[in-house]
Amino acid sequence: MTRQRLSTCYYPEHVPEEIWAEDAARMRGLGLALVRIGEFAWSRLEPEPGLYCFDWLARAIDTLHGAGLRVVLGTPTATPPKWLVDRMPDMVAIDANGHPRKFGSRRHYCFSHEPYAQECERIVGALAKAFGTHPGVVAWQIDNEFGCHDTVESYLEAALLAFRRWCRARYATIEALNEAWGNVFWSMELSSFEAIELPNLTVTEANPAHRLDFRRFASDQVVAFNRRQVEILRRHAPGCVILHNFMGAFAAFDHHRLAQDLDVAAWDSYPLGFLETSRSDAAWKARYLRIGDPDFQAFHHDLYRGCGRSGWWVMEQQPGGVNWGAWNPLPAPGAVRLWTFEALAHGAEVVSYFPWRQAPFAQEQMHEALLLPNGEPNEAYHDAAQVARELAQLDARVETERAEVALVFDYESAWAWSIAPHGQDFSYLALALAIYRGLRRAGLSVDVVPPTRDAVSGRKLVLLPGLFAPHGEFVEALAASGAVVLIGPRSGSKTPHFRIPPELPPGELRALVDVTVRRVETLRPGVTVPLADSLGRFEHWREILMLGAGVEPVLETKSGEVALARRDRVFYLAGWPDATLLDEVLMRVLDLAGVEWLKLPADIRARDNGEMCYVFNYGPEPIDISALVGDVPLLLGDENLASCGVAAFRRPMRGFRADADRA
Amino acid sequence: MTRQRLSTCYYPEHVPEEIWAEDAARMRGLGLALVRIGEFAWSRLEPEPGLYCFDWLARAIDTLHGAGLRVVLGTPTATPPKWLVDRMPDMVAIDANGHPRKFGSRRHYCFSHEPYAQECERIVGALAKAFGTHPGVVAWQIDNEFGCHDTVESYLEAALLAFRRWCRARYATIEALNEAWGNVFWSMELSSFEAIELPNLTVTEANPAHRLDFRRFASDQVVAFNRRQVEILRRHAPGCVILHNFMGAFAAFDHHRLAQDLDVAAWDSYPLGFLETSRSDAAWKARYLRIGDPDFQAFHHDLYRGCGRSGWWVMEQQPGGVNWGAWNPLPAPGAVRLWTFEALAHGAEVVSYFPWRQAPFAQEQMHEALLLPNGEPNEAYHDAAQVARELAQLDARVETERAEVALVFDYESAWAWSIAPHGQDFSYLALALAIYRGLRRAGLSVDVVPPTRDAVSGRKLVLLPGLFAPHGEFVEALAASGAVVLIGPRSGSKTPHFRIPPELPPGELRALVDVTVRRVETLRPGVTVPLADSLGRFEHWREILMLGAGVEPVLETKSGEVALARRDRVFYLAGWPDATLLDEVLMRVLDLAGVEWLKLPADIRARDNGEMCYVFNYGPEPIDISALVGDVPLLLGDENLASCGVAAFRRPMRGFRADADRA
Amino acid sequence: MTRQRLSTCYYPEHVPEEIWAEDAARMRGLGLALVRIGEFAWSRLEPEPGLYCFDWLARAIDTLHGAGLRVVLGTPTATPPKWLVDRMPDMVAIDANGHPRKFGSRRHYCFSHEPYAQECERIVGALAKAFGTHPGVVAWQIDNEFGCHDTVESYLEAALLAFRRWCRARYATIEALNEAWGNVFWSMELSSFEAIELPNLTVTEANPAHRLDFRRFASDQVVAFNRRQVEILRRHAPGCVILHNFMGAFAAFDHHRLAQDLDVAAWDSYPLGFLETSRSDAAWKARYLRIGDPDFQAFHHDLYRGCGRSGWWVMEQQPGGVNWGAWNPLPAPGAVRLWTFEALAHGAEVVSYFPWRQAPFAQEQMHEALLLPNGEPNEAYHDAAQVARELAQLDARVETERAEVALVFDYESAWAWSIAPHGQDFSYLALALAIYRGLRRAGLSVDVVPPTRDAVSGRKLVLLPGLFAPHGEFVEALAASGAVVLIGPRSGSKTPHFRIPPELPPGELRALVDVTVRRVETLRPGVTVPLADSLGRFEHWREILMLGAGVEPVLETKSGEVALARRDRVFYLAGWPDATLLDEVLMRVLDLAGVEWLKLPADIRARDNGEMCYVFNYGPEPIDISALVGDVPLLLGDENLASCGVAAFRRPMRGFRADADRA
Repeated sequence: MTRQRLSTCYYPEHVPEEIWAEDAARMRGLGLALVRIGEFAWSRLEPEPGLYCFDWLARAIDTLHGAGLRVVLGTPTATPPKWLVDRMPDMVAIDANGHPRKFGSRRHYCFSHEPYAQECERIVGALAKAFGTHPGVVAWQIDNEFGCHDTVESYLEAALLAFRRWCRARYATIEALNEAWGNVFWSMELSSFEAIELPNLTVTEANPAHRLDFRRFASDQVVAFNRRQVEILRRHAPGCVILHNFMGAFAAFDHHRLAQDLDVAAWDSYPLGFLETSRSDAAWKARYLRIGDPDFQAFHHDLYRGCGRSGWWVMEQQPGGVNWGAWNPLPAPGAVRLWTFEALAHGAEVVSYFPWRQAPFAQEQMHEALLLPNGEPNEAYHDAAQVARELAQLDARVETERAEVALVFDYESAWAWSIAPHGQDFSYLALALAIYRGLRRAGLSVDVVPPTRDAVSGRKLVLLPGLFAPHGEFVEALAASGAVVLIGPRSGSKTPHFRIPPELPPGELRALVDVTVRRVETLRPGVTVPLADSLGRFEHWREILMLGAGVEPVLETKSGEVALARRDRVFYLAGWPDATLLDEVLMRVLDLAGVEWLKLPADIRARDNGEMCYVFNYGPEPIDISALVGDVPLLLGDENLASCGVAAFRRPMRGFRADADRA
Repeated sequence: MTRQRLSTCYYPEHVPEEIWAEDAARMRGLGLALVRIGEFAWSRLEPEPGLYCFDWLARAIDTLHGAGLRVVLGTPTATPPKWLVDRMPDMVAIDANGHPRKFGSRRHYCFSHEPYAQECERIVGALAKAFGTHPGVVAWQIDNEFGCHDTVESYLEAALLAFRRWCRARYATIEALNEAWGNVFWSMELSSFEAIELPNLTVTEANPAHRLDFRRFASDQVVAFNRRQVEILRRHAPGCVILHNFMGAFAAFDHHRLAQDLDVAAWDSYPLGFLETSRSDAAWKARYLRIGDPDFQAFHHDLYRGCGRSGWWVMEQQPGGVNWGAWNPLPAPGAVRLWTFEALAHGAEVVSYFPWRQAPFAQEQMHEALLLPNGEPNEAYHDAAQVARELAQLDARVETERAEVALVFDYESAWAWSIAPHGQDFSYLALALAIYRGLRRAGLSVDVVPPTRDAVSGRKLVLLPGLFAPHGEFVEALAASGAVVLIGPRSGSKTPHFRIPPELPPGELRALVDVTVRRVETLRPGVTVPLADSLGRFEHWREILMLGAGVEPVLETKSGEVALARRDRVFYLAGWPDATLLDEVLMRVLDLAGVEWLKLPADIRARDNGEMCYVFNYGPEPIDISALVGDVPLLLGDENLASCGVAAFRRPMRGFRADADRA
Repeated sequence: MTRQRLSTCYYPEHVPEEIWAEDAARMRGLGLALVRIGEFAWSRLEPEPGLYCFDWLARAIDTLHGAGLRVVLGTPTATPPKWLVDRMPDMVAIDANGHPRKFGSRRHYCFSHEPYAQECERIVGALAKAFGTHPGVVAWQIDNEFGCHDTVESYLEAALLAFRRWCRARYATIEALNEAWGNVFWSMELSSFEAIELPNLTVTEANPAHRLDFRRFASDQVVAFNRRQVEILRRHAPGCVILHNFMGAFAAFDHHRLAQDLDVAAWDSYPLGFLETSRSDAAWKARYLRIGDPDFQAFHHDLYRGCGRSGWWVMEQQPGGVNWGAWNPLPAPGAVRLWTFEALAHGAEVVSYFPWRQAPFAQEQMHEALLLPNGEPNEAYHDAAQVARELAQLDARVETERAEVALVFDYESAWAWSIAPHGQDFSYLALALAIYRGLRRAGLSVDVVPPTRDAVSGRKLVLLPGLFAPHGEFVEALAASGAVVLIGPRSGSKTPHFRIPPELPPGELRALVDVTVRRVETLRPGVTVPLADSLGRFEHWREILMLGAGVEPVLETKSGEVALARRDRVFYLAGWPDATLLDEVLMRVLDLAGVEWLKLPADIRARDNGEMCYVFNYGPEPIDISALVGDVPLLLGDENLASCGVAAFRRPMRGFRADADRA
């Protein structure tokens, strides 16, 4: 069991060297164990081509290490310096409109540009050789937030040529590609791989199969780009943790695949920024303005816990107001502490506040930090100090149990449904999050997992909403798992080549429950399909099912179509459920699965990681949680849990059981 | 009299040849008479430059013909294959921002690109020679949906050069052009035709006269492009019907002019898709979600009936949910049948369901069809079967009477008011449709006609809302017609050179009713001008009139300006009427014209084509229509007409007369 | 004292020469004293390169002058003719997306294009030599509406090269620039001035310091462009007034700096157009639909009065409906007269109606004028005639007193907060206008001034909301002024290099009131921070203050943070106040400053220019203003002031004093 620790992100190049030691001492004094540095410093590490200036970094590492901190060192490849761009001006990505994405901010490179990739190997190699065995360096972060600012896809000629090679490798013959994509449609057939174009600037939408393969290709390019650095670091920095800091609400490349090359999947958690940029309605945004969506972070914690090979971190934790939302409110008092504990409750090994000190210049000068720009503590400094004390007191360690319930999340599905949403507001991420909210309302601790055999084995309940094109092997694994399975809506509705399955949706999944999706429709906001007996509604998406042998209807719409079908332990849900309907459906599948669940008060969320039970109050008023706690002593918090409050105890949760309610 | 028939659209190239015969047999079994094929098949007809592979098409035609079907053969010029684009990369259009519109979907060509036009002549010539006299081929469709995806206008250099030639032909001297456009304004004067630019990417809006001429030019290019194919087909396919499939809510080129070269004006009718993409408000879209706007299709039926030389068809009839709306609901049970009968009631010779079989791949895989992707019948299959039976039972034939009422629709007006709407929500099409709705609420059967002498002669009532710049000859024809005429709003407000007439609006129309429009204004949503006595309101647009000799005010606004003026049989309406005001105005003009009219229940629509009376229920509940039917036996439907219900009988309609109501 | 006069804008090149004399006579008959001509006539003045055709202009001037009118002659550089663009195609600006801004409307030039600037010198020189000493020409307008249609910034290579020179001049060394901009952030460091790029097309936002310097540079280019013409005119047109016509709601270059080179700062006042394009909500737009925002014009009058060296004019006064709003309503009867008197009340020397005659062609054909397109008077003609009569009767002269209250307006602040608004709806102009509204509700006559020593000396009250980076000298001037000062929100929050001040905001202003802004936040629409005791709310923006020694809290939020702080005569306001809170704050600062203020009825506005008191009714109903007037005889208007009514009298206003109200 690993002890859970706190960290921060530090930019020694932003401040005079004279204050490094003081900063390091304050970090230690605050109770931080780690510090991330270096990930945007290329222009200082190599101010001229080939002129390595690593001495300042060495001194910074020594200073931090000397104060008792462990260093996470970032590779600086997210911000190539201007002299490099001037040497290879065609390295910058081209956007979908054909415009170059110029130097002047960050991430101004195309993943397919081989000379740039080689430059990255060079600088990373030099850094790895210099610091790979430094005793103070315990982890390496590769690049920074791959894909941020919509940078996964590039329409550079280098990308086009690489995509043609990728297609050749995948399909071998152009006839096979034409067949796979259905290029006979609209005379889109190609006579050679050299005839392939990138799917931008077409008169109307390009072939979704073409677009999906381009998304797959683009994802593979990110994975390959990362792997080249991993290989260098494995060679020169043995024993170091290798990680990348992923983002929230972002699925533009396959994080599961990329993370297979990492030790730790980290992510950058900005609850208020993400709420502001989310699709939630204005009332929701106003309600959770200063504390953030009560489920969004938890979902991502569970997602990234399922990504890494050996652990997961929050690499950047919002410590105050950010600069990048359309509006940027301040967190409620206590919110930073709540977010930290929510991450720790989900098993984070490290939670790292970004950044240590608010930079008074450049793009992020309005991004708050643990310290104000003048070096005085901001509010989050005290939050962090409190968490550090409480962590020590709790002696919190990571021991996350395998959850009984697994929610399948699949990156290809996200791409597929963004390419062809069918309804303007159909978002795979929103669908997965909607289902997750239901599970969390039921007090459950959930694993968010990829569609693999390993991920679903040993579960009591597996849910697969909107799973684009499950592979036969995975379907077999589901069948073999013994779990109760909830399929749909939209699951299995395509083959991997983005075609409707010959036997109609849910395609391969019909092996589990013999339903046929004959028709589907998408619903404008405000239009819903009511269930019989006021058991809720479908919104956004609904399907018309035909039931095969042995399949029984469980719920029906008011007009008599099957809304939920079941064969043995497998359910099929024929639409996007609102909260009422989802709770109805989950009650049935959870009970059948033998999973104990709760009926939490609104705004209360809970997480049991096997080692510890946590309860959180996301609402504006105190809430009595004594029924949850029972007579176990609280290690943190009160039974009348304040707004932003965190309670912790060492026993399985009870109370708020739905049984009584239903009886 | 032609018997009315059903059809479908078929893509033999999408399915294995083995099932063609079965498909053909099922089509016949269903009661279909025609089948359209071939219009997107260029890559299969000519897989390499000059290598014609027509054998499969010949076998497909033979198979279909052999089963008793007549074939409509499409020319494949909407989808030039990749090898052709690679040979002439500059054939693709350039959008208004200067971006090429690349290969990868369809319509990736510029109408002004002469080498591409010659390639079209070549392939069409080859096809026409091969199949022009095939006994199974009875009609040819040229290209597909000209202008779809905003493809009429192109900013390619070829278009620029052609536009300069067009301007030279129209104006002869650059001085004449400068004078016509008013180029003295803002020093826009040009010294030669070579100085003319396309009106895109200007700092602020370009001269509307410049823009209008560019729209005229672009329209002429489409007409010329079409005519080159017509001429080839007339030569090699004698006796065949030549048609094009126009679209709904689309006026980017002059359909009246293009259709003069055709035998049949067909259009593609997608009631739910069009409703979703319309400007109607959310409540209206929700109300008619699954049945479509009750007037939109009828308006287009009447419009296209007035376009063709000898008939009109629905070439593509929505059979289920489509893929291209922002949201895509399923039709209500019976809606497909209702739409089919609405078209037949308006005199369609053919209604053709698109498509026969849902393609499981590529861009339109979510577009429903008569068959599901697995070949099983979808709901519309049964609707079509029922219509086929009912048609046979009714022995329905086309005999559309010339309507007493003509609504003038003019493509130049649509361009003019989109170039210079003056109010952001001023749409000519919306204005024409608003007036049409009033006529349809009054139970009238209407012809939608171009502003020509022939079109208005012999009418009892002619309406010309928003007619941009009527020609003197047309004004004389109106005067000579003896019809009651309702002019305005905004009619005659410009000369053909997009100038305010010297004598002020309504320009030439002052010969009919001597009013002067001194001022106009546009009104934000929510701002209206109320009429006196609560007789409704102006919205969007209103005018301040000065009345000449012999002109009397008929209606006034609450603040005393003239809202409706009249001299003898000619009325001038000084604003965009809401439904209440429009009904008031129509009551007056219809009564004066001696046109009998009804006051239909909400959601009921009716159409009398001389041969047969039809009644339709677009509402969600049954409606008693017995007052309409009287004691005539119903051939279809019940007097308590169900939602989506169709009633038909062989007598003029009565009942719901407004007389009683007013008495 | 200058007598206040009326004028119009005339385009002799638009009409046959035969009617010039008649037009001139009508202008005089109407009571107009001046007429502006020529500013778009380059293609007529020089139809071919080097071929000057000034004879027609000479005849036009002679005709107008002969009729007793004085001429304002415009330089035609806003509309270079096509032949010039063809000679130097690279003179057109490039937009931020890299697209050229083509010929075909106006302002199609880049301010940094030196050859074009030389062409301007040539044509202006020729005109100045020809007409500089013409007795009929009394004033010159340079160019037209600099910056209109977003033309200040250009991304042409000429602009890039000029920007690099500008940076070199400002920073001397690239190291200094790197330090100033904080380029160490994200490795944005540059190694030479040649490495500088323009801040467009970056992957995500460019460095705000970079962007601000680019805005400063772009502003300087406009100033320099204007100055070159000024110098020519000073040489060849001695004694003539030199002016430029600025715009409303426009701050893209530094009008204070440019106006230092002018005699008169004129602006173009379009109350209805500006209301329609403003950010005001729909209810506000509907309420003032036909009369315009009651404070917007006044604010700009006060702003431009503070710009010119020796006077200010309204160069273009909206006379009817315009063509360029999203919707274009007609003014209420009397609105044109009210707007004219509002300008005169604020001290305009000249109010000039644009245009004399509605052009029946080209882009502005729907822009109303004093005359209809057919030459008949439109309504505003009669309004102008009435104003002319009333002006003569009032013998109105310009004598504007220095106001006791000064509101600081600063162009750099507008750029800074548009670059980094932090909240999507944070607009500096909106903030300044919001504060101005409060002052105007209090019946005050205000000067809007730049942040300079001269501008604030001798005031009783100075307000500086949102002042980006006040210079130390200005802060000293404020301290020395003895005025009551209201600082904030957001004032002093940056250094001139767009950095957070080392001592935190309000930076240099802490010398006046020792508060520290520790944190800030922006608030979504609908989210506010309530004050204690229901004294209003913060919206959009709020700050968390720490008070230094001697600073006392005056107002607090409901949750106890300081909302208004004070030390002696200096107040700091910690957020964007709603109207209720603003009135509370102003009451306190005005009383302390000893400024007498009123509590005007809603929709009543007043202006005392020392020479005359004016009262205006912007509401839809008559309002009793007798308490304001007392027993002084009214020279204009009634005590029961009608909608759109104007009252004038020669005594300080009384009544509606808040004292009674508060007692």
